[in-house]
This record gives sequence, C-alpha cells and structure tokens, in this order.
Amino acid sequence: MTKLVKNIREAIELSGLRDGQTISFHHHLRNGDFVLNMVMEEIADMGFRDLTVNASSLFDCHRPLLTDIENHVVTRLMTDYVSAGIGHAISEGIMDTPVEFRTHGGRAADICSGETPIDVAFIAAPSSDPMGNCTGKFGKSACGSLGYAMPDAMHAKKVVVITDNLCDYPLQGWSIPETCVDYVVVVDAIGDPKGIVSGTTKITRDPVGLVMAKNAAKVIKASGLLKDGFSFQTGAGGASLAAASFLKDMILKEGICGSFGLGGITGYMVDMLNEGCFKNLMDVQCFDLKAVESIKNDPRHIEIAADQYASAKARSSVTDNLDIVILGATEVDTDFNVNVHTDSTGYLMGGSGGHSDTAAGAKLSMIIAPMFRARLPIVCDHVAAVSTPGKDIDVLVTQGGIAVNPSREDLAEAIKAAGLPLIGINELKAKAEALTGKPAPLAHGDKVVAKIIYRDGTEPSPIYSVK
Amino acid sequence: MTKLVKNIREAIELSGLRDGQTISFHHHLRNGDFVLNMVMEEIADMGFRDLTVNASSLFDCHRPLLTDIENHVVTRLMTDYVSAGIGHAISEGIMDTPVEFRTHGGRAADICSGETPIDVAFIAAPSSDPMGNCTGKFGKSACGSLGYAMPDAMHAKKVVVITDNLCDYPLQGWSIPETCVDYVVVVDAIGDPKGIVSGTTKITRDPVGLVMAKNAAKVIKASGLLKDGFSFQTGAGGASLAAASFLKDMILKEGICGSFGLGGITGYMVDMLNEGCFKNLMDVQCFDLKAVESIKNDPRHIEIAADQYASAKARSSVTDNLDIVILGATEVDTDFNVNVHTDSTGYLMGGSGGHSDTAAGAKLSMIIAPMFRARLPIVCDHVAAVSTPGKDIDVLVTQGGIAVNPSREDLAEAIKAAGLPLIGINELKAKAEALTGKPAPLAHGDKVVAKIIYRDGTEPSPIYSVK
Repeated sequence: MTKLVKNIREAIELSGLRDGQTISFHHHLRNGDFVLNMVMEEIADMGFRDLTVNASSLFDCHRPLLTDIENHVVTRLMTDYVSAGIGHAISEGIMDTPVEFRTHGGRAADICSGETPIDVAFIAAPSSDPMGNCTGKFGKSACGSLGYAMPDAMHAKKVVVITDNLCDYPLQGWSIPETCVDYVVVVDAIGDPKGIVSGTTKITRDPVGLVMAKNAAKVIKASGLLKDGFSFQTGAGGASLAAASFLKDMILKEGICGSFGLGGITGYMVDMLNEGCFKNLMDVQCFDLKAVESIKNDPRHIEIAADQYASAKARSSVTDNLDIVILGATEVDTDFNVNVHTDSTGYLMGGSGGHSDTAAGAKLSMIIAPMFRARLPIVCDHVAAVSTPGKDIDVLVTQGGIAVNPSREDLAEAIKAAGLPLIGINELKAKAEALTGKPAPLAHGDKVVAKIIYRDGTEPSPIYSVK
Repeated sequence: MTKLVKNIREAIELSGLRDGQTISFHHHLRNGDFVLNMVMEEIADMGFRDLTVNASSLFDCHRPLLTDIENHVVTRLMTDYVSAGIGHAISEGIMDTPVEFRTHGGRAADICSGETPIDVAFIAAPSSDPMGNCTGKFGKSACGSLGYAMPDAMHAKKVVVITDNLCDYPLQGWSIPETCVDYVVVVDAIGDPKGIVSGTTKITRDPVGLVMAKNAAKVIKASGLLKDGFSFQTGAGGASLAAASFLKDMILKEGICGSFGLGGITGYMVDMLNEGCFKNLMDVQCFDLKAVESIKNDPRHIEIAADQYASAKARSSVTDNLDIVILGATEVDTDFNVNVHTDSTGYLMGGSGGHSDTAAGAKLSMIIAPMFRARLPIVCDHVAAVSTPGKDIDVLVTQGGIAVNPSREDLAEAIKAAGLPLIGINELKAKAEALTGKPAPLAHGDKVVAKIIYRDGTEPSPIYSVK
C-alpha cells in the first residue's frame, strides 16, 4: 500500500474537493513557502470557485493568492496574520466578505472543535515517508516544528502531504502520523530555504531599543516572577531579544533555572536553554536555523501542536502556565488595548498570531514599544483595531517611562519600589504628543474588510477599508 | 492552573460519571495493574450501576471486577483479550449481556470513529506532570509504550490520569499530551513492577518447538520476503521467539536489513534492532524490561498508538505495511480459521489482541503450533470460535508438516521447492488423529456469553457458555 500520487493535481482530484469548500495551509515555511502557490495554481487551473482559504498566516510570497481572490476562486479568507503585501490589498477592499482574523490558539481551537471545519488540508512537509508520516525537522527545506499544521492534519476531512524529501517507511520521529494522511505528493521543492528561516536573529543595537530592553528586564525582576521554575516567551524582534539578553544575564548571575521557554523559538532562546536558563523549550514554530538544528537534535527542545500551545478550548494549553511574555505593538491606547493588525495609515500588516493568547495566559504580559515611531506617538485614545484587549496587558515599557495597567496596582508598587521610571499612560501619551504634536485622527472607509475573532469567540469592532 | 485532584473519588465526582455510562482502561501494566481495581472499588462504593467497561485487555489481577459484575455495577464488557480467570467466569455465564470482543485495531478504530464512545477514560501513567502530560517510559512502574491508551485519551469525554510519579511541568517526552487530560491523581502505586513486565522473555528449549521454529524460519526464507526493507512481527511465546532466533541468524548471515519490527515488543526484538536486523521498532506495548529500557533511550524504538498500529478505519496503519507475522493458535480448522479465544474445554482464555489485525495486513501470516496438545489435535473440522478467518492465514507450521492455505498456491510451490515438508491440512488432521484418536465433539451451553467483532465490523458465530 502507498499513498503516493503523481502530482498535486491528482491529489486534489482524489480529495474530492468541491466548489464552496475550505482548504487549509500552515506557515512554517514563512516567506519561502512554495506550497500554497503551487496548490492554488492547480486549483485555479481546475476551475474551482468560491473556496475558503484557512491559512495560519499569509506572507508576501503568497501574493499570487490575490489573483485567485480577484477571480473568485477564493471568496473567504481565515488567517491569524498577514504581511503587508497581502494586507494592503485586503485594506483596499479586494474581498467581498470580511477576512476572519483569529489568534494562533483560536484558529487551532476552532479547527479542533469543528467550528471551522477543513475539507482538504495541504501540509508542506520537509520530510515524509510514502504513508505520510512526516516532519519538519530535516530535509533540504527543514523548518523545525510543524506545530501549526497539526490541528489541520488531525481534523481535516482529507489531508495531502506535499514534500521534497521522500524517506523510507517508517520515517523516524514524525510530527504528523500516517493515520492522519490520505495522499503524499513529491515535488522538486516545497520552499526556498532562504525565505523559510532567517540565518540568524539579531539583538537590537539601537540605543532607544537598548534602554527599553534594560528596563523591561528590570520590570520582570521587580515582578518577582524571575525564580526557579519560571517560564518565558518573547518575540523575535530586536528589542524583545535585547530584553531577553539582559534577562539572561540576570538569570545566570542569580543561578536561577526556569521551567520552559515558549513560542516561536529563535536561536537566542536555544542559547538560553543550552546555558541553563530553562529546562525545556516548547516550540510551535522555529524562526531560525539554530532553532531548527536544536529541535532536531535536543530532546529538551519539544515540538508542540498549536492547540497545546494556546487553545482556549483545550483542556489546558502551555500558555495557561506561562509566567512572562514580552510582546510588541503598533499602537496602544489609554485603556491598554493593543493593535498589532494595522499600521499608522490603517493598512493591515500583521495580526494577533500568539499575541492575545499569551497575553491572556501570562502572569506578566509586557509590551515593549518606542514612545513614538516616525513622529507618531505609540499611545493613542483608541486603537484602530483591538487585537488584544487591555485587560490582558499588564505593562507598557517605553524609553519615556513604564506605564502599568491600573488593574495591576501590585505591579506598579513593585516597579516603583525598584526605582524604575513609572508613568501614567495618559501622561505618557501627553509626553509623546509634546514632542510629536497630536496626530490627526485617522479616517477610514465604509467597508468592513476584516473582523477580529478573539480566543473566546467574541468579536470586537471590525476593521474598515482605508479611505 | 493545575489538574491535580486529591484522590480517585474526587476525579470520578468531577468527571460527571453517571449510571449507564462507559469507562475505559488500558492494559500496559498487565497482570501488575492496580488502577482498574482501585477505580472500580471507588465506583462500586459510590453506588454506580449499569456501567460498561471497555478495557483493552483484562488479566487475572482484575478478578475483583467479577464482584462488580455480580452486583450489576458493571453490566457490559468490551475487551480484546481476557486471561483465564476472568474468562472462566464469563464462560460460566456471569454476564447477562454478551461480552464484546474486538481486535486491538478494531477497538481503537471504534473508539476513534465514535462507534464505541467513552465517557471517562482512566489512564494508568507511570509518570505525569500536574497538567497530564504523561508517559510510560520512566517511573517506578515504567511499562514503556502507552499505545493502547492513546485512542482512549484522544477521544474520551473526560480523561483521568492516575500516576505514582508526579514530575515537574512540562514532562519531557510525553506520550499523551495535556490537551487530552482533565484530571490528574497521584497514588502510592499504580502497579506491581513484578507483574507489569517480565524480567526476560525466553526462547523455547522444547525439541518439538525448536523443530517448528526452524521450519518456520525456512518457510519465511522460501517466501522470498526476507530481503532488505522487510518487516516482521512475532509474539512473545517460546516457539515464536525461537523462530525469530533462527530468522535472526539468517538475516545476519545474509547481511539483510529490515525496515521495522512491530508489535508488542520483547527484549528479543530489541536485540535484533541492536544487531542491525531492522532500522526501527514500532511498539504498541512493551513485554519486558529490556523493551522498556530501549523505548526510553533509543529513538529508533518508536511508540505507536493502537490506531496507528492496526486500525482498519485509519487512513493507514502499520499492519498495512507488514510483511511477515508469526502467530499462535489454540485450534485451527481445515478452512484455516483460527481460534485464540477459547481453550479445549470451551472456556474463554484469550482473545484476538492483534492476531486478526496482523493476519489481515501481513503478506505472510503464519501460525506456529504443535500438531497436538495434551492428546488433542491442533487441526479440527470447525474451530469453537473463529478469532481470525482462514482467508487471512497463509500457512500453518507444525512438527508434523507445513500446511499451506489453498489460496496461496504460490507459497506452496516455494515451500516445496525449498524441500520443506508440505502436508495438506486434512492430511495433517488425520496424521494427528492417528496418534491421539479423534476427539469427542465439544458440547456447549445455550447462552451466548460473548461475541467476536471483526476489524471490519462483521460478527461471526457467537461464543456460547460452557455446558
């Protein structure tokens, strides 16, 4: 018995895909992914119409999808994140139906619960055997964890694995087992390694970033959470990594050992593991080559499925046990609501990803952001899109001071006691505006182009087209 | 957040268990299991009635369950195997409703498909963290693979993990993730290590067994399947292990390397892995200490879930790729039907386990059995219970000759060409009867005490009470 079929077209035919159904993709190959485009090219060529695409994230390499949208091959989009090239078109109104933005945990939860059923899932697999036991840990297009693909593979009605490295059965150390997989297609390349993972992730050298990072680390220390068994997530941004660097110095100096580092994992987190800052890494996605090598070789570096990462509907997820998370923002308002969906001109250029999930789970959720960017203050009256609600944000760290959510008086006391520069959020806003001037309010168009669906299923205000 | 509850009773209360519902257990702790009895003692004490117990296997250590049956705490049983102590009571009619026997693959398939839903699954876990990430690979009650528990954990409405080794979160290398688990209970001991795994499994020294084993190995060689990439399963019986030993000599002499060894895994299969006979072991259950050590330490020794092992409803299972299986029998009839459920007096003392699953999947399914046992010929006109249908059995190897299923003329030719002692199955029966006399037919009682449900869902003739 074998599940090998001769090409993507045959797999689509065998899957029984019909007009109006839902297909899914995952984003571990990031901006190097070839699979979504290869599949969509066949689908368009076969004459399908009115499909829903449920993709864990969309990058600029996926811009050919915009043509499928214009041609009504795809009429609905569900995703957790879009890069600017895709976001621009959405904001200009390319879709008739609003895009549904979920969190990484919310997407997984809704797939697992059947809320957003998938008819055919396409899994880009850096290595697979002929029965579909597959992994991202090795192969010429290795991407490490396949965490975001796991709910799709577990729950889709049909599952197609697309690989460029066919291995003997049984592939050792699969992430997705054969029991989930219907068809296996071998192609020349599933992605461009240069786009799949960055060579290295780099700490910021910007002096403003370094000031914020140092204060961020001090806030964490002041919170009292930095003790044996602590857990930590940070993003791959320069200031976040710099904060992790200062944190690492504290951890090593004090001889503390954490429980786990979580998230999209960078080489920097791998260094922290190897230097004894944590006992484990819990990895839903690898950001760079060092992380890919580590998850392949080190049993302490554990691959987790997206639902185990962050589903609010799972019996538990790792975010429920998270102590500290460092996050970014494009805007924060005076109620601590955070926008990571749109840029200062109102165009979509991001999405929640794991932002809201970790903010909701962590005991200390911290935003690091400069007081202003390109003469626009970070703090505003009302964010254009509420990606993460203010109730889940504890503290905003800027170079102009540290603003604590009024609900966390205990934290404000601790920060004050540590001699750190506390500032009220309204004061911080005023301080920035004194330097930049008060920006003109951003007008938006009339069309709802996207809705944000929270991890609890509620939908705050929609996102409108640009004017 | 924690899922720790103070004792089994609290977990049962929180699970919402009601009269008439189904609870499940797995058998990796074999005849050393304490968990089923501990849970049933609470359940009986709490006054529950009319429960269904779905257990992957039942051993004599579970005899207290018979009291629960007498008291109508338990009124339905589903299992894949019963040892003689439980089987005796069933055959004497202790249940009002016939016991449902499935195969290991069939049980998993019906749990995964929802055919046999489980309300509360109780997982005996040799190690767990407070969120329910758990494994059988280490801890004082280590049992190795938890393969049979995985479908229960994945699909039960509520899942209770019972452990005697609570570890820090996150437990590294879990078999069952926290996303499946509702409650975790810590007890003093989940089992008696002496009963969980045998110290060693031993090759037969009986001369009749050795003759059969040598011929079995020669039949496998004659079949042409013994080449690079072959796959193999055998049981833990003395003659089967002896056949594996002869096979190993052939493999090493010819410099062949197989793909995988499958099944319940013994130290003998581990030796074959380590000596280069296979690239991998696929392990749904560990039979001895050496297997437990190996699955803990060797990434080539892979834990598989029961559905991946053998479900006919899965998109594929490992048995679909199995070349050779060596199996036992209590009776074989002239249509090659095999009985592994009842003994010569009609009492239940076994069950299919993976017998039918592997027989259906393997390219060569071989029965090794002595021509007669205690003056009863192995071959009869009609087996008392059709555990595995004759269409799935290729060859019967006895010390009195090798009988090939007429559907496998190619195999008969190959065996003949190899100079091995072929014999017709009717001739084999006559040969045995000439030595033992023709046994009196076995009369049975009127009550249907059990039904066998094949992996395809069909039900052959039922099993009756003893007279």
